[in-house]
Amino acid sequence: MTENHISSLQNPIVKQILHLRDRRERDKSKLFLIEGYREILRAFDAGWTFDTLLICSQLFLGSNEDALIQKIASCGTKVITTVDKVFHKISYRDRPDGLLAIAPQRTLTLNDLENPAKESILPFYIVAEAIEKPGNLGTILRSSDAVGVDGLIVCDRCTDIYNPNVVRASVGTLFTVPTVEAQGEETLLWLKERGIAILAATPQAKHEFTQVDLVRPLAIAVGTEQLGLSERWMQQADLQVRIPMKGVADSLNVAMATTLLLYEVLRQRR
Amino acid sequence: MTENHISSLQNPIVKQILHLRDRRERDKSKLFLIEGYREILRAFDAGWTFDTLLICSQLFLGSNEDALIQKIASCGTKVITTVDKVFHKISYRDRPDGLLAIAPQRTLTLNDLENPAKESILPFYIVAEAIEKPGNLGTILRSSDAVGVDGLIVCDRCTDIYNPNVVRASVGTLFTVPTVEAQGEETLLWLKERGIAILAATPQAKHEFTQVDLVRPLAIAVGTEQLGLSERWMQQADLQVRIPMKGVADSLNVAMATTLLLYEVLRQRR
Repeated sequence: MTENHISSLQNPIVKQILHLRDRRERDKSKLFLIEGYREILRAFDAGWTFDTLLICSQLFLGSNEDALIQKIASCGTKVITTVDKVFHKISYRDRPDGLLAIAPQRTLTLNDLENPAKESILPFYIVAEAIEKPGNLGTILRSSDAVGVDGLIVCDRCTDIYNPNVVRASVGTLFTVPTVEAQGEETLLWLKERGIAILAATPQAKHEFTQVDLVRPLAIAVGTEQLGLSERWMQQADLQVRIPMKGVADSLNVAMATTLLLYEVLRQRR
Repeated sequence: MTENHISSLQNPIVKQILHLRDRRERDKSKLFLIEGYREILRAFDAGWTFDTLLICSQLFLGSNEDALIQKIASCGTKVITTVDKVFHKISYRDRPDGLLAIAPQRTLTLNDLENPAKESILPFYIVAEAIEKPGNLGTILRSSDAVGVDGLIVCDRCTDIYNPNVVRASVGTLFTVPTVEAQGEETLLWLKERGIAILAATPQAKHEFTQVDLVRPLAIAVGTEQLGLSERWMQQADLQVRIPMKGVADSLNVAMATTLLLYEVLRQRR
């Protein structure tokens, strides 16, 4: 019989969850953690499945948790209750809300990003090259969801998309924005073959980002926090634009710059 | 004789620095910490003074550190060398770069934000109400610097502007953007008396943020991560705008939303 309640910090599932905070364990097991009502709801609604759902009803913040748990359980997911002490141990948050799932990762490829049924006739992608901070990647996902991109391509990853801080900062949009991890070379080729223009932001560009026609098949490429986009991508860019900087700092936070470019595309395509 | 080298973790200055990570100690002593070459350089260039500068030359990343240290020392700041072990203890970073200063806080008031000599005839402020996360406040400062606002007004503060994570996320723009902490009521009054329009973003607004005329004396008001702008500010807003949300999430990260609004003002005022 399987165990449906955990009261001990020594339980193997507690240990498994703590290990899943490390990328090595996530890479090996192809599992990851989803914490929080909103995040788990968004994953479920987007068709993701869960191996195990851990709950602690004393910590629930709302009144809809039971309905969600029932729906998830009816799909065959094992639901385990925990005591408060155990949930605080497995939680990644300051104020846990009593829901945490272990879920299988999904592995999409570039070709999964093509959607011929889609209404839009102008493909719209974002390429994030070697972003280091999970919070930035999560925030980029959140903005990508908001403007309705066709996909996020993470090239030459530094942080993996299943890092708990990516899931958290994305507030669950990781589950709705099609996200692919790919090598830089294959991504460049894939975009070029499809006639998708690559847009890069650089202080050296002649035109500001609001002055360039973005109503075309487009991939916005952004690079690391420290160094920006690599030379390889910069050279392959079909469009270079500048974000005005009127102060002492020479650049914006990468997620800010990305959000500005994403919304400029939206503004021009209205 | 004053001590100019620290090799022990038990040194009182080490303890003082660790205490300054806590708001209570910062509020009491009116001191704060500035870490990093770039941040200290920006503070110095903007005319800030330091009580003490701690350095660890083994950790320097560039070749300009000595010149900066000499300039700072020539203003009467005490310079203390430390061993690697001590610097790692006092540093707030994963990869410290060997420079950390203790500096007096500055307290500006709303009236310090007025600058009659300024070329701009259109005042441009940002009001950040009750922002909780230091990283968000720092990033808002970074974007505020980039668009050249006349000042940031932090109302009913939750995080204080001298939190080490604000300094870090602002990459030193805290020292160039005039920043004031004030009560909500007095700020509202101050803005209204000067005929400065208050702009608020809300999903209920009729017009998108790119469709409203922002070429006027303006204060952008943004609220907490969880709840947005308070009812008080929303009711007093002269302009309400909507940021389009085409995905599953109902809001952007507060720093993203702020950056979009700031740059839309810049675009319209070009």
